Formats: sequence, structure tokens, C-alpha cells
Amino acid sequence: MIKVAVCGAFGRMGTIIANMVHEDPELEFIGGVDLRAGEVLGKPVVVSDELAAFLEEKSPDVLIDFTVAAASVRNIEIAAAHGVALVIGTTGFSEEEEERIRKATEGVVPIVKTTNFSVGVNTFWELIRHAASLLADYDCEVTEAHHRYKKDAPSGTARTIISILEEEMGAREKMYGRVGMTERGDEIGVHVIRGGDIVGDHSVLLSGNFETIELSHRAYDRSVFARGAIRAARWVSGQAPSMYTMKEVLGL
Amino acid sequence: MIKVAVCGAFGRMGTIIANMVHEDPELEFIGGVDLRAGEVLGKPVVVSDELAAFLEEKSPDVLIDFTVAAASVRNIEIAAAHGVALVIGTTGFSEEEEERIRKATEGVVPIVKTTNFSVGVNTFWELIRHAASLLADYDCEVTEAHHRYKKDAPSGTARTIISILEEEMGAREKMYGRVGMTERGDEIGVHVIRGGDIVGDHSVLLSGNFETIELSHRAYDRSVFARGAIRAARWVSGQAPSMYTMKEVLGL
Amino acid sequence: MIKVAVCGAFGRMGTIIANMVHEDPELEFIGGVDLRAGEVLGKPVVVSDELAAFLEEKSPDVLIDFTVAAASVRNIEIAAAHGVALVIGTTGFSEEEEERIRKATEGVVPIVKTTNFSVGVNTFWELIRHAASLLADYDCEVTEAHHRYKKDAPSGTARTIISILEEEMGAREKMYGRVGMTERGDEIGVHVIRGGDIVGDHSVLLSGNFETIELSHRAYDRSVFARGAIRAARWVSGQAPSMYTMKEVLGL
Amino acid sequence: MIKVAVCGAFGRMGTIIANMVHEDPELEFIGGVDLRAGEVLGKPVVVSDELAAFLEEKSPDVLIDFTVAAASVRNIEIAAAHGVALVIGTTGFSEEEEERIRKATEGVVPIVKTTNFSVGVNTFWELIRHAASLLADYDCEVTEAHHRYKKDAPSGTARTIISILEEEMGAREKMYGRVGMTERGDEIGVHVIRGGDIVGDHSVLLSGNFETIELSHRAYDRSVFARGAIRAARWVSGQAPSMYTMKEVLGL
Repeated sequence: MIKVAVCGAFGRMGTIIANMVHEDPELEFIGGVDLRAGEVLGKPVVVSDELAAFLEEKSPDVLIDFTVAAASVRNIEIAAAHGVALVIGTTGFSEEEEERIRKATEGVVPIVKTTNFSVGVNTFWELIRHAASLLADYDCEVTEAHHRYKKDAPSGTARTIISILEEEMGAREKMYGRVGMTERGDEIGVHVIRGGDIVGDHSVLLSGNFETIELSHRAYDRSVFARGAIRAARWVSGQAPSMYTMKEVLGL
Repeated sequence: MIKVAVCGAFGRMGTIIANMVHEDPELEFIGGVDLRAGEVLGKPVVVSDELAAFLEEKSPDVLIDFTVAAASVRNIEIAAAHGVALVIGTTGFSEEEEERIRKATEGVVPIVKTTNFSVGVNTFWELIRHAASLLADYDCEVTEAHHRYKKDAPSGTARTIISILEEEMGAREKMYGRVGMTERGDEIGVHVIRGGDIVGDHSVLLSGNFETIELSHRAYDRSVFARGAIRAARWVSGQAPSMYTMKEVLGL
Repeated sequence: MIKVAVCGAFGRMGTIIANMVHEDPELEFIGGVDLRAGEVLGKPVVVSDELAAFLEEKSPDVLIDFTVAAASVRNIEIAAAHGVALVIGTTGFSEEEEERIRKATEGVVPIVKTTNFSVGVNTFWELIRHAASLLADYDCEVTEAHHRYKKDAPSGTARTIISILEEEMGAREKMYGRVGMTERGDEIGVHVIRGGDIVGDHSVLLSGNFETIELSHRAYDRSVFARGAIRAARWVSGQAPSMYTMKEVLGL
Repeated sequence: MIKVAVCGAFGRMGTIIANMVHEDPELEFIGGVDLRAGEVLGKPVVVSDELAAFLEEKSPDVLIDFTVAAASVRNIEIAAAHGVALVIGTTGFSEEEEERIRKATEGVVPIVKTTNFSVGVNTFWELIRHAASLLADYDCEVTEAHHRYKKDAPSGTARTIISILEEEMGAREKMYGRVGMTERGDEIGVHVIRGGDIVGDHSVLLSGNFETIELSHRAYDRSVFARGAIRAARWVSGQAPSMYTMKEVLGL
């Protein structure tokens, strides 16, 4: 059994993750930390300041952290110093924070860090890379759809899609909307749909030579992200110290 | 048999229409006019200046015209003066030209005039009207996709869709592209995809209350427009003098 | 304020509905019945046997019932005898039970009864009826997709779609799968997709004359059904005694 | 310039291919054979019996053949004997005929032979293989849609898709239609839509873990198949003698 601790154990993602760890036959949930002390699934949650003591006492194999950048960096430094493998879903690190993470973990512990833990999204990104490399001369349009309350456009996942396309097809202009008289060159069209309660759809259209290939991904529930983190936790324990993404976890 | 003459008989649409008239068991192709004289399917095509003489000699029941605005207005005036019913697919009339058409035909001959003769598109428009009237509080997004060479954005068909939505849901801002931090209000999102050889797709998404209804139309071939004109030609002969659209032809 | 009581108040649907009633500015949740007594949102839930006494004491305007057929019939009879309007989402009534419901309510109280309360699905059904009436000669294919655990095929909603198509297009053979050498006649193709955690998609394809119209509905969450029941509760109070469906509630 | 001859030069595919060869800056159309003699694009077409003499006189680099199995085998044997590289789109060879082709060409000339020359379909197949290898535990459903006159179900392209899925995911039951009470296991669902004038759509749905990935391909015109053959003709000339598929041509 791989012993897993969770940072932000009372949070929305932390709660989901703690439960999934608990139900996983290969993993054992041993508690965690949060802003206040308490209990989750009968296991102790201590205040964040006591993370070091907690790690010494409980010796987890893996620490999963979906919190905020400042707290996460500190958690990573402490865990690395205790030789605990890491699964990090926190986003929004500054360059300075990224550097601190690198320094704390390099050659010390294995760490899986990504902005999207979904198995499907990571697979989807690989398929887009594959498709773009084979159809580099096809016209390319990216569409994403989310609920009416999502404000950033396009989504982070769509921005990663665009990066992948440009890695394979070369840097291109992005066209975020067409109106009036237009002339299609080799730009990437980007279309952001916002409406109702759409959970999250992404699609890439590659069109040329009287045919179209479309790759699309749809999420039905935010639990997909937690599931990916669980998979990373099972994988990371026992890996050589290095910084990994889900690509290595999934063997893509 | 309904006798049908075709203006622009050598043109792309004229040729398709002449052939469809020829093959229709209820219609008889009797020739037409174009910029030069000649023959189509063994029937005479005279120069446009001789339209009046042609109508006197051949007495067609219906004249179909897919030409250009200036020529079409003149053809309509001459045909109306000879009591010939009209099917007009020409677009781009000025307000002055629209007025001349109205004056020439009002109370004189039946005329079917529309920007899209496709049975499916006209049905699609009615379904969109119906949906928008029932789901007026849902978020609404319009997407259209055409081949890379289409320049005007959005398509004429999409602009008609937007008009219909606004008739049912009230005037709204149109959002032709979202990028950066955005806040969805009650605008209509409009997305124009251009790529490869896509013949013509249109879709309306109505999203709210944890569900989405999508209505979409796809054309596989430009012949759909000609088919609608043929249907209009069969219908218009014998109607009371008035200006009609495909809505009446199709009994929508 | 319309006073609303809920049968099956501790059940999955009952809980969602009680909460939505509670949050609705036009409705007041006053308690309900279930197999055991207790409390929901600070309001009394009595055992089902005490429904009559409960109705006398609390005088609700509307009773919402998503339970099982046998219990529901009895609840309906008691509520009707007390002049309480009804919103019934229970399914699976036998013909004899349907007859008892009719007898109990006819000329006595207004009752809204349907197998699907979703505003979107009911609208979708109307749009399908409209489309089928206009394109009765187009080929017609129905596809539905649900999660891998759904056992009945096709779904109840798809079966209603098929009925509507046949009402408009005439009775037809249903083709539940094509393999080998086939010849398309005027059958309705029915395709049942089962996989993963798909919440519920339905689509109707109408294809002919080099074009295709597709109408599709997607549910993101089961709460859509509860929302429709709330809308019915607001509507039914004050209606003339009669049996209604969501079509009247929504003014479709 | 690569000199190209075409078998079946008067046929539907032969005509399209001859024109594409003619317009390709790297290829030169030098004539071909068919059941009767004549001329295409000003180049000689001789009767099939004179293929050997034609090859001797004209020394083409590549022979493209989209004819019927019996004729094609003979053409292949003659062309191989003259050292002419081959691009074969003919289908329906018996095992005996396949063996004759192998014997005639092995170690003698390079030959590209496939059932689908579309760049997009071949890319699509590779993407499906990639997706299936990464998501082998997801539920898998294949849908294809074609015009109402297509009789074989599922399409050859869909059958290749199913083979690829089974190569990656293991042999599985195929479920060609679900009706009644069903229980999803690890079967591959196969859905065949037939209607109107749909040119050719294929899609693979991989569903699991609260997400769905869909890969789809749409053809807009049969010319896609000819384009792939042209690409194969440019590629095959100068290759080592061997039997190739489009996978090698496209470097997939």
C-alpha cells in the first residue's frame, strides 16, 4: 500500500481526492494538512504549519497538493526535504516560485506537476500533436465551450492545444473571431463558446483536400481531474527523482 | 405542364436549373435569355434585350432568374408586364430596386423571392424561430463553417439566423469572438469557421438549465438551392398575385 | 406564495425538489411525506399514512410526487379529495392505475403528469414534431447516448421521439442496427450508444436532397428534471381541473 | 517529371486521376488503357490487350489502376514485367489473385496498394490506433454515416477501424444494435446510419472516467481518394521493390 497525504484536505478538490485515495485498493489515505485542524475519513488533518512534524510521524510515500501557489511552494519544499514524492495540481506559480520548486526537488524526489490531470485531456493533447504533425498543411480551427460563468477565454486547455499545434505546424496568427470581409491564410481560428452549464468541450478541426478530421474532448464532471491525480500518485511513488508531467505517468 | 423560361441560362445556376426543369415531369423547359444567344437542351436562348419578344412568342408560365440585381429588375418588369409568374434568386438589390420590383409585380403577378431556396435551410429557419420563442431565456450561440475561400463573414444564411433569433428574443449585442477576460451577458455569440472545402454548415446552440439544444444544417451540394427554385416554380404558377417567400411555397 | 408539499421528501428527486421549492421566490416548501417521519429544511415530513391529516392541517396548494406507481396513485387520490393540485413525475403506472388517476382527478383538480419534466426535452420534442411535419419525406435516424450502466434501450425519451416521428411521418419499421447487405427504405434507424458516464444525449437526423438537419439535446445534470417540476408547480396552481402535460405548462 | 499511365482511363476514377496527374507539376500524364481505344487530354488510350506494347513504347514510371480485380491482376503482372511501379486502388481481390500480385511484384517493383487512398482516412486510422492504445480501458463505439444507397454495412473504412481497435484493445464482441434490456460489457458498439446524400462520415467515441474523446472524419467529395493516389504515384517512383500501403507513403 502506498501511503498518501493530502494538502488542502478540507478543500473542494482535496475532499474529492481524499475520498478517491481512500477507495483505491493500492493507496492508503493517512491524513493531511489544511488551514485548520480536524479529521477527514477518520484520519488527522493538522494545520499547515505542522506539516514537517506530520510527515515525520506518518511517513507518507506521496503528498498530493491542490492548493494555492504560495502555500504549495512551501509544502513542496518541506515534503522534498522529507523525501516524499509529490503530485502537484496547484497552478499560477510565478517564475520565482517555479525556480524554488525546481531547486527543492531536483535530484531529490520525483514530482508530477501539470495544469490538467485528466487522462483524457492529456491523451487528447497527444492525439492533437500526432494529427497536426501528419496534417500540417490542413486548415486548423480550435473551438472550446464552457458554462456562461467562465471568464477567461480561451480556456487554459485550449491555450495548451494552440501551443501544441504551433509546435507541430509552426508559429501562426491566431484569429479569435471573423467578421466582415476576411481572407483565410494559415492562421489558427479560435472560437470560444460560453453558455448555460456546459461542463467543458474542446475540439480541433483539421480541414483540407475535401475532408475534415475533428478531434474532440468532453468532460462530464470535475472528478476527472482528481482521478488523474490518483493515477499520478500510484505512479510517482518509486520513480527516480525528476520533474514529470502526466505524459510520463500515462506513458503517452 | 408548366412552361418555364430561365434567365442567365448559360450561367452556373442557370445551367443546373434548366436541367432540373427539363427532368421534372411537371415542368417544361422552353428556353431563356442570357448575354449571348445560343441553345440549351435544344431550346433557344436569346439575348436579354429580346426578352419581351421571347415571352410573347413562347408564353412561359414562369420565369426563373438567378442573375445580377440590375439585369434582374429589368427582367422582372418585362415578365410582370407579360403576366409571367416569377421565381427570383438574385440577391443584392438596392432599396430602390426592391421598390421597382414591388411596383412592377404588386397586384400583377405572383413572385417568389428569397436569398436561400433550400428546403432544408428554410425549414431550419422556422425551427430556429420556434426554438428561440420557446427558449428565449437560454444563452444563444451561432456557428457556421464554410470552405477557406469564402470571404464574407458571417454567411448570409447565418445573418438571417441572427435576425430570426433577435425577432424572437429581442435585439442583442453580437459577439464575434471572445478573448481575454469576458463576461457573458445576453449577447449572441457568432463563430465563423473557415477551412478546407467545407460545403456549408450552420448551427444554433441554445444552452441553459443544465441542458443544451442544438439545431444544425449541413449542405452536401449546391444543387439544393436549385431544387428549391424548382419547387417554387411548380408552386408559383396559379397563385394569386403577391410577393411570396419559400415559407409560403413550403407551407411552413 | 404557492404552498408546496413533496411526496418522497427524503428521496433523491424529492430532496432536490424540496430544495428548489425552498429557494423559489414564488413557492413555499411546507413539508411532505415519506416512508418515515422526520424533517427537511426545518419542515415536517410525516409518514405516508398520515398524508390526509397533513393536507388538512397544512392546506398546500400543490403536491409534487416523484415516487413509485402504487404509492403515487394513493397519494393522488387523497390529494384530489382535498382539492390539492398535482405535479406527478412518477412513471410506470399500469393501465388500471392510469384509470384510477383519471377518475380521481377528472373535473376535480388540475394535474400535470409527464415522463420528462425537462423544459429542454419538451421543447426538443416539439421541434422534432415541427421538423418531421415539414420534412416528412426525408430519411430519419434517431441516436441516443447514455452511460454504460443504463440498461433499457432505447431510452424512454427516445421512444417518445420515435412516437412523435411516426405521428408526423406515418408508422414505420424501426431498424435497431444495420449489418451485412442492407437496403434503406423508409424505416427509422435507431442507434443506442452506451459508454462511460455520458449523462444523456439525444439526436434526430433528417437527411435528404443533399442536406441534413440535425436536432440534438444534451443534459448536463439530472437537476433539469427537478427544475421542470418546479415550473409545473408554479403553473398548475390556479389552473382549471384537467390533466395537463409539460406542453401546456410551457405553452409549446 | 514522373511519367504516369492510367488503367481505366475513361472510367469515373480514371478520369479524375488522369486530370489530377495532368495538373500536377511533378507528374506527366502519358495516356493509358481501357476497354476501348481513344484519347484523354490529348494522350492515347489503347485497348487493354495492348498494355504491354504501350508500356514498351511509352516507358511510364508509374501505372495507376482503379479497375476491377480480374483486369487489375493482369495489368499488374504486365507492368511488373516491364519494371513499372504501381499504385493500385482496385479492391475485391480473391486470395488467389492477391497471391498472383505478390508473386508478380515481390522483389521486382514497388507497389502501393490500399482500400482507401485518402490522406485523411489513413491519418484518421493512425490516430484511432494511438487513441485506442492510450485508452484501452475506455468504452468504444464506432459510428458511420453514408447516403441511403450504400448497401454494405458497416463500410469498409469502418471495418478497418474495428480491426485497428481490436489490434490495440484485444478482440471484442461487436454489437451492431441495442434494443430491449442490455448490459454493456467490453463490446465495440457499431452504428450504421444511412440517409439522404451523406458523402461519408466516420467517428470513434472513447468514453470513460467522466469524459469522452471523439475522433471523426468527414469526406466532402470522392476526389479525396484520387488525391491520395496522386500522392502515392509521386512517392512510389524510386522506392525499393516492395508492397507498401499509404502508411509508408504518408510517413505515418
